[in-house]
Amino acid sequence: MEQARIVIIGAGFGGLYAARELGRSGKKVVLIDRTNYHLFQPLLYQVATGYLAPGDIATPIRSVLANLKSVSVIHDEVLDLDPGKSCITTRECTIEFDYLLLASGVTYSYFGNTEWSKHAPGLKTVQDAVQMRCRILGAFEAAERSADEKEQERLLTTVIIGGGPTGVELAGAVAELSRGTLKGEFRRIDPQKGRIFLVDSGERILSGFHPNTSAYAKKALEKLGVTVLTNTMVTDLGSEEVKIMRAGSLQVIPTGTILWAAGVQASALAKKLAERTGVTLDRSGRVEVEPNLSIKGYPNVFVLGDLASCKGANGELLPGVAPVAMQQGSYVAKVIVARIRGRDLPPFRYFDKGNMAVIGRGHAVAEYGRLRINGFSAWVAWAIIHIYFLIEFENKLIVFIHWAWNYMTNGRGSRLITKG
Amino acid sequence: MEQARIVIIGAGFGGLYAARELGRSGKKVVLIDRTNYHLFQPLLYQVATGYLAPGDIATPIRSVLANLKSVSVIHDEVLDLDPGKSCITTRECTIEFDYLLLASGVTYSYFGNTEWSKHAPGLKTVQDAVQMRCRILGAFEAAERSADEKEQERLLTTVIIGGGPTGVELAGAVAELSRGTLKGEFRRIDPQKGRIFLVDSGERILSGFHPNTSAYAKKALEKLGVTVLTNTMVTDLGSEEVKIMRAGSLQVIPTGTILWAAGVQASALAKKLAERTGVTLDRSGRVEVEPNLSIKGYPNVFVLGDLASCKGANGELLPGVAPVAMQQGSYVAKVIVARIRGRDLPPFRYFDKGNMAVIGRGHAVAEYGRLRINGFSAWVAWAIIHIYFLIEFENKLIVFIHWAWNYMTNGRGSRLITKG
Repeated sequence: MEQARIVIIGAGFGGLYAARELGRSGKKVVLIDRTNYHLFQPLLYQVATGYLAPGDIATPIRSVLANLKSVSVIHDEVLDLDPGKSCITTRECTIEFDYLLLASGVTYSYFGNTEWSKHAPGLKTVQDAVQMRCRILGAFEAAERSADEKEQERLLTTVIIGGGPTGVELAGAVAELSRGTLKGEFRRIDPQKGRIFLVDSGERILSGFHPNTSAYAKKALEKLGVTVLTNTMVTDLGSEEVKIMRAGSLQVIPTGTILWAAGVQASALAKKLAERTGVTLDRSGRVEVEPNLSIKGYPNVFVLGDLASCKGANGELLPGVAPVAMQQGSYVAKVIVARIRGRDLPPFRYFDKGNMAVIGRGHAVAEYGRLRINGFSAWVAWAIIHIYFLIEFENKLIVFIHWAWNYMTNGRGSRLITKG
Repeated sequence: MEQARIVIIGAGFGGLYAARELGRSGKKVVLIDRTNYHLFQPLLYQVATGYLAPGDIATPIRSVLANLKSVSVIHDEVLDLDPGKSCITTRECTIEFDYLLLASGVTYSYFGNTEWSKHAPGLKTVQDAVQMRCRILGAFEAAERSADEKEQERLLTTVIIGGGPTGVELAGAVAELSRGTLKGEFRRIDPQKGRIFLVDSGERILSGFHPNTSAYAKKALEKLGVTVLTNTMVTDLGSEEVKIMRAGSLQVIPTGTILWAAGVQASALAKKLAERTGVTLDRSGRVEVEPNLSIKGYPNVFVLGDLASCKGANGELLPGVAPVAMQQGSYVAKVIVARIRGRDLPPFRYFDKGNMAVIGRGHAVAEYGRLRINGFSAWVAWAIIHIYFLIEFENKLIVFIHWAWNYMTNGRGSRLITKG
């Protein structure tokens, strides 16, 4: 009998962990990704703000899986999938599967205002991060060229939309860029005078954390010079301004840089899957999965990572973070291995590893169950965990030393403006 | 009396050295560059072949000059210059000067076949290097996707045009990529079987070196698996082939990757300068300069670096390499400082620091006057000199450690395919 063929779409944390686990069991796996690298997304904001180069947080998928000879990697884009016919279609070919793992992730959502995307880049890909870096650094350059004080003021104003971990981390990093790294480098402008707004529609930033943590983060950001605007809706934005509704009144913030860290939506493949199988999508377009992460009516098709709409033990949706995707990847791999042996596994259970966000250098917030740590010790915990995962796939220890050095000195390793 | 204003166009080695020297004397300098970074071009081939990230060899111009308060940096593109009216025009403004230093460098020349550029990228900018990296790595990916043996063979064939130091360094690095780094990472293809051609129209590669050195380099490249084709003219090239004329017969090499390392031509500003001042340009469009690097009839306008057509002590044109540009930058700065004090300096004299090219890891050729070294000791000399200059402007020591580690292990730090 020929070996079952397992096709995995997406080499994020979910897809990669599944591929590795299956490869170690000698299963025949085809892993397909649009890029040739696995991206360490949790540090993407550091690329966007010039601390790290894209290559520092991107590992070639092939090199991670080189020793697992039953795993093939294909650098290609999946255009369609048909669980009924057990095949997927890429740009270049059609591939049949016995098991399918869909882990193609999410992209930014502008809540229907797609034209906002060109003024307010999001942060999911290397291209996004490089574009953000060029916007942020380019605004300082444009301000230095300008002779008009009002124009300089506008260009030195950054608006970050979305007060989740990404928004908070961006706000902190931009503040440290303008207050620290760029200090003394300009002649006409003073980067330290730049204003930074962090806008969120909710009552508090970091709404996934405990209210005390949110309050702490707000205070810490304000100390760095960030103006935190909660209960504030963005009603419109363009190339030079953001319109907000706050306490019932409409305000306009003239700005040179708008960064988007608000909603996400599922990748287009989720829609295809729903069309083909009738599976339900949630409000963000994520796929509702069975307790074992397969989809209704197709026990050989699994959805995992950010793309899966999956409930935790307390009935709440699991967040779109790396630990969830990692655990789901390993879990699904085990389900398939067991299935091939004619057995079944109990439903997926997320082992909560806590929640973290960095505010600035040497400054973070962390929660682990009822334990809450803020400040330097939280940052140390954050750094240790991120180093551990960063060096897991490749010897990136020296990247880390490089990064730690820059981080301590507030130097930046990668400050290129390559576009525009 | 107001201070003389010195405008420098281009922040390569020539422009940056001049700015630094002038800044240290407290002179009022405006340095204009299209990018916001100084690029360490001698290591650009390592970005093109995945060893280094662009940020590793690019230093923000502002941070280099931050402490020289009389120097302003403008991130802008110069469109025109008019020595008669003592002003230059950028995209955003007009700037008057008392002294002008033109150091805008060179770009690749396709000898009139401009349509070749889209099939055979050159290597002068970060964008060039990233494009080259995507081509090189992308060809292996495409070969792995292909099921056709002939097509795989074509995709695994790399043709490098031009046997100067850049061509030799690229050929060596591509050979080590396919023979070393990528080994064991593919399932359908064997990257080691890829063929690499280094094509040169002259009698020998590295024609700027001693014939013995050329012969040594040829042998060393052949050992790495590179086919060196001298006395070979490229007559045409397209997306999938290179046509060559060799020993009187026309041959076609089917290929997946064509890299251009042949002729260069002066930047467009040289032409503008010639139009405005009547100064003579040489065959490559470089500006013929007076013994003190000023141009005829305009003692306050200087041309330096790759853009200057300048003869050495032996009557031969000085090569377009970093040491020439550095020495010219410092020299012109001293000429201007002396001039402001009402004095003059003797003509520019190049102090020859020798010539080097890397063939592969731990393998280089070097010449210093009559002294010729090949092999590992030449490579050590090359590495020390490059480290010295790389860390001169910024603490890039850790970049170097990272690089050394990758280089020794034949790992690659930055293997992203970001386009196409």
